[in-house]
Amino acid sequence: MRTGKACVRFKTFQSRSPALNSKPNSMFNLDSLCFFKTNLQSAIIILHPVSTKMIFKKNLLCCFYGNNSFKKQRSPEQSSPYSITMLKVPEHQVAGRQAIDGKLGPLIDNSGHFYKPLQDDDERGTRELTFYHSFSSNTRIPHHIRRFFPVFHGTQLLKASDGSGLRPHLVLQDITSDHLNPSILDIKIGSRTWYLEASNAYIQNCFHRDKTTTTVSLGFRICGLQIYNESGFWKPERKLVRNFTADDVRSILRMFVSSNVGPEPDFSFADSVYGGCDGILERLMELKTWFEDQTMYHFCSCSVLLLFDKESFLKGKTPFAEVKLIDFAHVVDGNGVIDHNFLGGLCSFIKFVSQVLADSKGSTMED
Amino acid sequence: MRTGKACVRFKTFQSRSPALNSKPNSMFNLDSLCFFKTNLQSAIIILHPVSTKMIFKKNLLCCFYGNNSFKKQRSPEQSSPYSITMLKVPEHQVAGRQAIDGKLGPLIDNSGHFYKPLQDDDERGTRELTFYHSFSSNTRIPHHIRRFFPVFHGTQLLKASDGSGLRPHLVLQDITSDHLNPSILDIKIGSRTWYLEASNAYIQNCFHRDKTTTTVSLGFRICGLQIYNESGFWKPERKLVRNFTADDVRSILRMFVSSNVGPEPDFSFADSVYGGCDGILERLMELKTWFEDQTMYHFCSCSVLLLFDKESFLKGKTPFAEVKLIDFAHVVDGNGVIDHNFLGGLCSFIKFVSQVLADSKGSTMED
Repeated sequence: MRTGKACVRFKTFQSRSPALNSKPNSMFNLDSLCFFKTNLQSAIIILHPVSTKMIFKKNLLCCFYGNNSFKKQRSPEQSSPYSITMLKVPEHQVAGRQAIDGKLGPLIDNSGHFYKPLQDDDERGTRELTFYHSFSSNTRIPHHIRRFFPVFHGTQLLKASDGSGLRPHLVLQDITSDHLNPSILDIKIGSRTWYLEASNAYIQNCFHRDKTTTTVSLGFRICGLQIYNESGFWKPERKLVRNFTADDVRSILRMFVSSNVGPEPDFSFADSVYGGCDGILERLMELKTWFEDQTMYHFCSCSVLLLFDKESFLKGKTPFAEVKLIDFAHVVDGNGVIDHNFLGGLCSFIKFVSQVLADSKGSTMED
Repeated sequence: MRTGKACVRFKTFQSRSPALNSKPNSMFNLDSLCFFKTNLQSAIIILHPVSTKMIFKKNLLCCFYGNNSFKKQRSPEQSSPYSITMLKVPEHQVAGRQAIDGKLGPLIDNSGHFYKPLQDDDERGTRELTFYHSFSSNTRIPHHIRRFFPVFHGTQLLKASDGSGLRPHLVLQDITSDHLNPSILDIKIGSRTWYLEASNAYIQNCFHRDKTTTTVSLGFRICGLQIYNESGFWKPERKLVRNFTADDVRSILRMFVSSNVGPEPDFSFADSVYGGCDGILERLMELKTWFEDQTMYHFCSCSVLLLFDKESFLKGKTPFAEVKLIDFAHVVDGNGVIDHNFLGGLCSFIKFVSQVLADSKGSTMED
């Protein structure tokens, strides 16, 4: 819900209102906007809220009306008589295609939803949607496994962030929405990101990438990350991330649970975040046990996302560390065979995390 | 030890004895042979023992003197005054290069030794020897894991079976020697048989083979097998084995523990061979636990060999089922990372075996 006097600039706009179409890139305050909206259906407006300087700098925002039709709502708390759902580029997206510079990418709202555009090349979109439909209705998924996956709310036709017009978006749980300043690791699991059903060009492309990253050697690769510290987020460039070695991975797993960023991590949060019955290792082991048995899906090119919010931790909130699976555009039928590729990579990653936890204990004992 | 009156025919022969060199393809009885041997050093003689018709048909035998020099031995039990070690082509070899038709391959003796020629292309020989040296002296290998590996007795210079002259051979435990009519499965574990250190040509070759067999899809492939039944061994051609599908693999795992060979296996031995605390599944789980932890070696293109001797079983002998690891020509340094490729494939194979065991129990309940 967004109301008030924020000024907005229309960047791209298509509506049935001649008044609005004639004023692209104009400035409006939000009350004016609401007034205009009463005349609109299914409008998507990309705007810059100049009153929020940080957001203005970082994100390109858009707002739209829920359910493809404008609904007039009134409540005592609302200073404006109209309901508006704000969409913006995810602030904490660390990997994958981003909705910036006119590109197609996911958007989020302020209600904990993540809108992922369905990709139409390589049948990825269909594949991911098929997976979510299958998974959502699959009664063989244990409850404790389901919580590793973002909640699926269906699809919604939204104007794509690349200006290409209306496009179906998966409506998913925004798994970062409960975190203020989350440190995040996005780890693509498996020593092979291609699959037999894929095109030859796709296989060759993945084959090359797998060999030149840590995918083949470690059974996983870090795709993106951000680590929060007092001075803000450390979010290395993609090119740097792509060249990570095994030693870099170890360093990052140490930094992830340290209050300092540097060559000598203090492991402040290692025991709480990686260890213990609510820790990341325990979650990963739960996943591992499931992957040793399930033969329904093969999760090619899928990521494990680790989230850890230092501020939540310091305030004693739980869960302060989460493990989620994301990116199912390359999930294929398991055909009665376990996902040995994912499982092997997951076990390798578990070993890395275990070693960092052991190092942290050694480090504490030395202190 | 081979003595007595067996007649032998020299097929190829090179020695320092002009008397012998002048008589290729001649017939001698073993006493005569022993007499000639007193004049020889490091002789290898390929012979056909015409007195043993089955062996004559199946194998090409050779005999040689231990330690590259002839030693005169005498004991009350020996009818001949001379010690002879007989070498022959392994009767139960189900995969890999075979010492037939003038090709280079392994030989065995009657004392439980397996002589594997060191391959000199692609540095395979050096790699396998390095592995055996490293593994033999590695104090971090638990005892219960060491027994999965053939015992290594060093190397010996022997005349190669392809007639190329003297060549170093690994002297290993012949793991089939305790079995009379072993049913054997040779399963190459891992969804990738190549490794980053290999040549591009080798990688491309493996990449193609992995995609066109079950290696990529199942995380392992059956490389060879023989299954014993009343009418003898069923030992399918390599071309047939190479085209096995997932369903073929399931069928073979069923046939392996059945007394009949056909579309409706009786699972007679399933519970004893796959199940129980001495069963194959338990052994595989032990291996799995080790692979989840060990970061010393990556066992590329290595096989798990399952051996099961129905006759031993029927006579109540144990162990009647064995699990061994073989073929270490492509073992590379683990560099502190677990062998996620082997582990994933092993877990997939474990799942297959578990499912056959479960099927067998369902089948028994239906009966």
